[in-house]
Amino acid sequence: MGFDEAVFCAGKSVTHLAQILDQAQEKGIRLLLTRLPPEQFSQLPEAHRAKVDYEAISRSGYFGSPHALTGPPRIAVVAAGTSDVYVSREAARTLRYYGAASLEITDVGVAGLWRLLERVEDIRHMPVVIAVAGMDAALPTVLGGLIGSVVIGVPTSVGYGVASGGQSALNAMLASCAPGLVVMNIDNGYGAACAALRVLRAIDR
Amino acid sequence: MGFDEAVFCAGKSVTHLAQILDQAQEKGIRLLLTRLPPEQFSQLPEAHRAKVDYEAISRSGYFGSPHALTGPPRIAVVAAGTSDVYVSREAARTLRYYGAASLEITDVGVAGLWRLLERVEDIRHMPVVIAVAGMDAALPTVLGGLIGSVVIGVPTSVGYGVASGGQSALNAMLASCAPGLVVMNIDNGYGAACAALRVLRAIDR
Amino acid sequence: MGFDEAVFCAGKSVTHLAQILDQAQEKGIRLLLTRLPPEQFSQLPEAHRAKVDYEAISRSGYFGSPHALTGPPRIAVVAAGTSDVYVSREAARTLRYYGAASLEITDVGVAGLWRLLERVEDIRHMPVVIAVAGMDAALPTVLGGLIGSVVIGVPTSVGYGVASGGQSALNAMLASCAPGLVVMNIDNGYGAACAALRVLRAIDR
Amino acid sequence: MGFDEAVFCAGKSVTHLAQILDQAQEKGIRLLLTRLPPEQFSQLPEAHRAKVDYEAISRSGYFGSPHALTGPPRIAVVAAGTSDVYVSREAARTLRYYGAASLEITDVGVAGLWRLLERVEDIRHMPVVIAVAGMDAALPTVLGGLIGSVVIGVPTSVGYGVASGGQSALNAMLASCAPGLVVMNIDNGYGAACAALRVLRAIDR
Amino acid sequence: MGFDEAVFCAGKSVTHLAQILDQAQEKGIRLLLTRLPPEQFSQLPEAHRAKVDYEAISRSGYFGSPHALTGPPRIAVVAAGTSDVYVSREAARTLRYYGAASLEITDVGVAGLWRLLERVEDIRHMPVVIAVAGMDAALPTVLGGLIGSVVIGVPTSVGYGVASGGQSALNAMLASCAPGLVVMNIDNGYGAACAALRVLRAIDR
Amino acid sequence: MGFDEAVFCAGKSVTHLAQILDQAQEKGIRLLLTRLPPEQFSQLPEAHRAKVDYEAISRSGYFGSPHALTGPPRIAVVAAGTSDVYVSREAARTLRYYGAASLEITDVGVAGLWRLLERVEDIRHMPVVIAVAGMDAALPTVLGGLIGSVVIGVPTSVGYGVASGGQSALNAMLASCAPGLVVMNIDNGYGAACAALRVLRAIDR
Amino acid sequence: MGFDEAVFCAGKSVTHLAQILDQAQEKGIRLLLTRLPPEQFSQLPEAHRAKVDYEAISRSGYFGSPHALTGPPRIAVVAAGTSDVYVSREAARTLRYYGAASLEITDVGVAGLWRLLERVEDIRHMPVVIAVAGMDAALPTVLGGLIGSVVIGVPTSVGYGVASGGQSALNAMLASCAPGLVVMNIDNGYGAACAALRVLRAIDR
Amino acid sequence: MGFDEAVFCAGKSVTHLAQILDQAQEKGIRLLLTRLPPEQFSQLPEAHRAKVDYEAISRSGYFGSPHALTGPPRIAVVAAGTSDVYVSREAARTLRYYGAASLEITDVGVAGLWRLLERVEDIRHMPVVIAVAGMDAALPTVLGGLIGSVVIGVPTSVGYGVASGGQSALNAMLASCAPGLVVMNIDNGYGAACAALRVLRAIDR
Repeated sequence: MGFDEAVFCAGKSVTHLAQILDQAQEKGIRLLLTRLPPEQFSQLPEAHRAKVDYEAISRSGYFGSPHALTGPPRIAVVAAGTSDVYVSREAARTLRYYGAASLEITDVGVAGLWRLLERVEDIRHMPVVIAVAGMDAALPTVLGGLIGSVVIGVPTSVGYGVASGGQSALNAMLASCAPGLVVMNIDNGYGAACAALRVLRAIDR
Repeated sequence: MGFDEAVFCAGKSVTHLAQILDQAQEKGIRLLLTRLPPEQFSQLPEAHRAKVDYEAISRSGYFGSPHALTGPPRIAVVAAGTSDVYVSREAARTLRYYGAASLEITDVGVAGLWRLLERVEDIRHMPVVIAVAGMDAALPTVLGGLIGSVVIGVPTSVGYGVASGGQSALNAMLASCAPGLVVMNIDNGYGAACAALRVLRAIDR
Repeated sequence: MGFDEAVFCAGKSVTHLAQILDQAQEKGIRLLLTRLPPEQFSQLPEAHRAKVDYEAISRSGYFGSPHALTGPPRIAVVAAGTSDVYVSREAARTLRYYGAASLEITDVGVAGLWRLLERVEDIRHMPVVIAVAGMDAALPTVLGGLIGSVVIGVPTSVGYGVASGGQSALNAMLASCAPGLVVMNIDNGYGAACAALRVLRAIDR
Repeated sequence: MGFDEAVFCAGKSVTHLAQILDQAQEKGIRLLLTRLPPEQFSQLPEAHRAKVDYEAISRSGYFGSPHALTGPPRIAVVAAGTSDVYVSREAARTLRYYGAASLEITDVGVAGLWRLLERVEDIRHMPVVIAVAGMDAALPTVLGGLIGSVVIGVPTSVGYGVASGGQSALNAMLASCAPGLVVMNIDNGYGAACAALRVLRAIDR
Repeated sequence: MGFDEAVFCAGKSVTHLAQILDQAQEKGIRLLLTRLPPEQFSQLPEAHRAKVDYEAISRSGYFGSPHALTGPPRIAVVAAGTSDVYVSREAARTLRYYGAASLEITDVGVAGLWRLLERVEDIRHMPVVIAVAGMDAALPTVLGGLIGSVVIGVPTSVGYGVASGGQSALNAMLASCAPGLVVMNIDNGYGAACAALRVLRAIDR
Repeated sequence: MGFDEAVFCAGKSVTHLAQILDQAQEKGIRLLLTRLPPEQFSQLPEAHRAKVDYEAISRSGYFGSPHALTGPPRIAVVAAGTSDVYVSREAARTLRYYGAASLEITDVGVAGLWRLLERVEDIRHMPVVIAVAGMDAALPTVLGGLIGSVVIGVPTSVGYGVASGGQSALNAMLASCAPGLVVMNIDNGYGAACAALRVLRAIDR
Repeated sequence: MGFDEAVFCAGKSVTHLAQILDQAQEKGIRLLLTRLPPEQFSQLPEAHRAKVDYEAISRSGYFGSPHALTGPPRIAVVAAGTSDVYVSREAARTLRYYGAASLEITDVGVAGLWRLLERVEDIRHMPVVIAVAGMDAALPTVLGGLIGSVVIGVPTSVGYGVASGGQSALNAMLASCAPGLVVMNIDNGYGAACAALRVLRAIDR
Repeated sequence: MGFDEAVFCAGKSVTHLAQILDQAQEKGIRLLLTRLPPEQFSQLPEAHRAKVDYEAISRSGYFGSPHALTGPPRIAVVAAGTSDVYVSREAARTLRYYGAASLEITDVGVAGLWRLLERVEDIRHMPVVIAVAGMDAALPTVLGGLIGSVVIGVPTSVGYGVASGGQSALNAMLASCAPGLVVMNIDNGYGAACAALRVLRAIDR
């Protein structure tokens, strides 16, 4: 289906990860590492760490060079709050790995509506929008009502109490009144990027 | 605490309801009847029906005259969709029972944001706002971010699938990013009106 | 955002529906009617029924002519079982309303894997695939792993016990191992079609 | 809507927090810090800590002087048990930040009813009551039945087993028989204070 | 363990029920019929109905004479609201079947606290108290805090939204702050009576 | 209602606990300490630890001498597995604190039925039985079917997966087919003991 | 995998069912009809009904002759209560359809343990046991502890309140202490029979 | 029923475990240790560790020699992903403990369908298949549709968000369209092995 193997690092031992990198090196392939928190990354041997382009907020790494950039951004990655950036950055980093530039916009949650309205025209120009939000997760609904692009909602696990680790945000997106909003699993910035890439391919084929 | 006895009619037999009305008549007191669907109301004896000011959408009735009107509206009752009106009307009818006029606004859900923005100034003038919404329930969050009045969110049981009888709307409101949004049980337009009345009393005392 | 108003009929009274159709006639606009079960449709006045192109399985109707067809099918609508057809037909009917032909394929659930494999090449040619399934809902995962098109999963409420009205199917799709699978609310064939249309527009712009 | 930016500190890195304080200092604005546990606070650089009026129980801090006091208490903050004080103190501290004094009353849960009844008259004089309780969460219901003020229920995550991190307390409050009781998310003392402030503003305007 | 066979009638066909009664008659044994709604009872053949001492509110029947009364009431059966009486009456009828008189008290929910306080002394004299309540279900907690008798809480399925068919009431009782409150399944008045009878036997042995 | 204040230690700081003990000493009262894990106890100052009769498995302590023993055991405390002992010991320790001896029986879960059957006669002699079990939690049902005493079920949080921290065990007990089985919150050995004491008092009065 | 197509009838229209039977007749194949309630069956045309060997309790039908009997019973189908028979009969009827006799045993729930113990030896002789139970669902655990055969647990949706449509029974079986107990979806007697047939085939191959 | 006592080590203190091993040594019996993570194992005294054949991935140990091998593999243990191996290895180790060889196959999840299809013939030869999978858990459904052997599904707790600690995988398996698929609790590789052994015994008796 056209995606490289991505390595989901959470829960894997450092020995196992080092082994995976060694095998990739032998085969001469690149790898996208996801869910690799800084503590886990810092325990990798120095030699392995040196070969990984690591970014802490998204907890992601590139082993080998990412795919070459394929042109100007066609995807907006929009996050409702600064707390949601660990997910929107994962999406943006995954897109970049596959050679797709993106327009990142942050802190435009609907409780401060005017900040969002100031950016709507920029977002509207993109054929695909990834909208990341936690808690009440109203951002993708508002966006889906304002623009006709493909809108991919990603709920985050931010919040407490009834936020329930992102379950409320997920349900709010799935029950959205905006027609044709599509949704990913909680915190799945990686998957949202893959979905966006599927759309770009549909455009390009 | 200053509220008349309200009769929650759902699940009560017609005989039981007639008995309650007879007792009220004997005592010379007025009654607010809630959750009285048309089918149940139509089964009441004609003599009893004649004494009730009934409204079908809100499924509510006044037995005896409601309290006298106390002035111009100080409460906005705002519904996201036309499907939510059974709840917003219950709130408005409860307010009217207690003598409080209200400003009713419907079909201003955030998936069609501009319709809401056109009415924001009208809403802002009210010290209390009851915001009724189902599904993603983003309306109270957007309102709570735009205005400084008391905003009371009421989730509705409208929708299917993950809407889960209103649970998703409820959770979205409770997890709202708008500071100080207060929330009622699902479909509880009656309770929202009582809460609004408590605020009016606080203003008036 | 480019979608006509769709009328969600479930729970609306016959009087209310007739009123909506009359208003549409006056304004000279077409309407898509969704979630209109045969019993409800048959209670509409004959004059109104005559103006609606109704289909019972999908519980949908066109008031006024649908948009003109825009070319050969670019969307596959695939249903795992014959019980899921009420949802896949809703998607196909919504697409047709907006002028998009679709390729409908049914009864290719993964418990009978070879039936699916026989149709994979037909499906692969479409840039967008709507995959409808209930219960274990493994169809979109298998499809998402086999082809690179945009795959939109729609869980159905078919089943009993832990199927929980579609919740298990929904969760299985959201937790899918296939990268970039996007998901709709339970039984939301209408929404899946709107999402597919957003992709077609992205292709066409 | 008239609230300063509040900084939700949980999950933010120490570097990020220090940066936020530095920016506030440059802009010359005050900040309310919430959900800042002692361990996190103690890791801030000494220079930053010195500028924060920190209180450990409520896990809250004032950066810059709080708003000036606006008069005698008009809000009662009532906690059912000593274990609920982390939430009631957060409410009281937020109120004080915005210049509102409050009357704090603790350990008046309904399993020891007479302790509550001794304080009812004091509470009744306040136009707004914040009632904080976990587990069976019966306190706001009893209060809402005894007094006509605005009663804001805040469930806490205290307890084990079916207490379910506050979900049972939340549901008990939402399902309360006391008319017009309004409810916040679990542990959301900050939000309860904001709601109370909205009421005070409605009184004062 | 000393209980007669009780016949749980819900879901049993009328033919099956008639058969059960015939067999009991042949064996010369008495039977307690529970969960037998009026519609189901009225479909039994006249000859069978004539042999059953039926009571509609509790949906219960005695086939054959109940056990002889064993003395004055030692059990209080207390219901929070008039809507909870279908459960409290089931408890009282089960007790009477086994020869135990009971003191029934209704409409003493804690949202109207003074009504309860007027009856506390009557309740305190009973060694066993069955406390029936729905929604916030605070009654057993308040009673358990006021008196030292055995207190058996029975949640009811009364209410809507988060009441969730009695689940919230059940959880509130299980999480109660009153030490030693014991709890039954939702609507299980029959079981509460059996528990109370176990206590009476422990007293009498 | 006749119970001393019990101190629920979980989540309380060591300083707070020491303070509570000091106050008790000043007032000359005894205290029952519950949910005090060894790590927390070991952090108390030596002087305070010396005054507490601590037991690690039940995580409970007596500050001051417990109430005097009142006679031979009248309560059986039965645990299904060795993993459930932390709860059954809490019950037994609470009973002893209040002067009630108990008969402790362990490892008689129903998956090894004959071990239970060997002890049934011993258990039957007790007017009250506390039955502690996790996972499928079938022990109280089997006991409730075999003996006529008061049976108090206590679910434990033992297990994984669907055991869900004791929720499955709790539900299995509440849904039990054994008539008159009463149930406590998950892991609430303390509450079960208080319930048993209420029964003993009913016997003794 | 060796199973005929089974027709899950619930939710299918009478027209659709008649069509399916006609097609089967044309192809000359037999069919197992499941979940066909008497009301639905009675609406089939007389000609179709005449060709179906229908049984009402299990809501199942054979269209065409079932497979020939293959020998004496090797499967025990055990139901805890008479209310569970709709599921155990579905299992037995499915087995008979495929030519497998079974030993049906009913009303041996563990709340009346001795009735079960009297039948244990009969059950032990069978290499496969299907154990059907609702509510606390302790039967399969007790059986799994007593015998070494393959034990297949089937939870039923019998009960109310926390029984939650069979969810509690399901969880109790999955969390069972008896090693190697396998479990089916709620009410899935058909599936249990298929599982038993897979075991018989493993024995026979 | 023919299983040795297995020691579930999670949550047991090192002292307790050492004691259990000492007692086994005295009695001269072998033991299977499950859920013994490396950290816990490494804290056992050296002398005890030396007597245990420990394997870290499955977190299992043999104390004493396992049962003698009884022939070539008759059970396939198939894992969808490398992350599921902790469960499939627990099954294989349990089988080996009881003398049953097994065929282990890994990384054949259905998102990469062709890898599975290459191995189907190997799997088909086994009378029993244990299929281990997390997240969407489609592997057992696909296998159950392809082969006629006994298929035992084991969901794993791998994944995040809606994976919900394995609950989604569990439900997907229980709701499977493949007839006769049987299911274990989440992560219960031990139980799956015991179920497989019950089948082997049924074959061998």
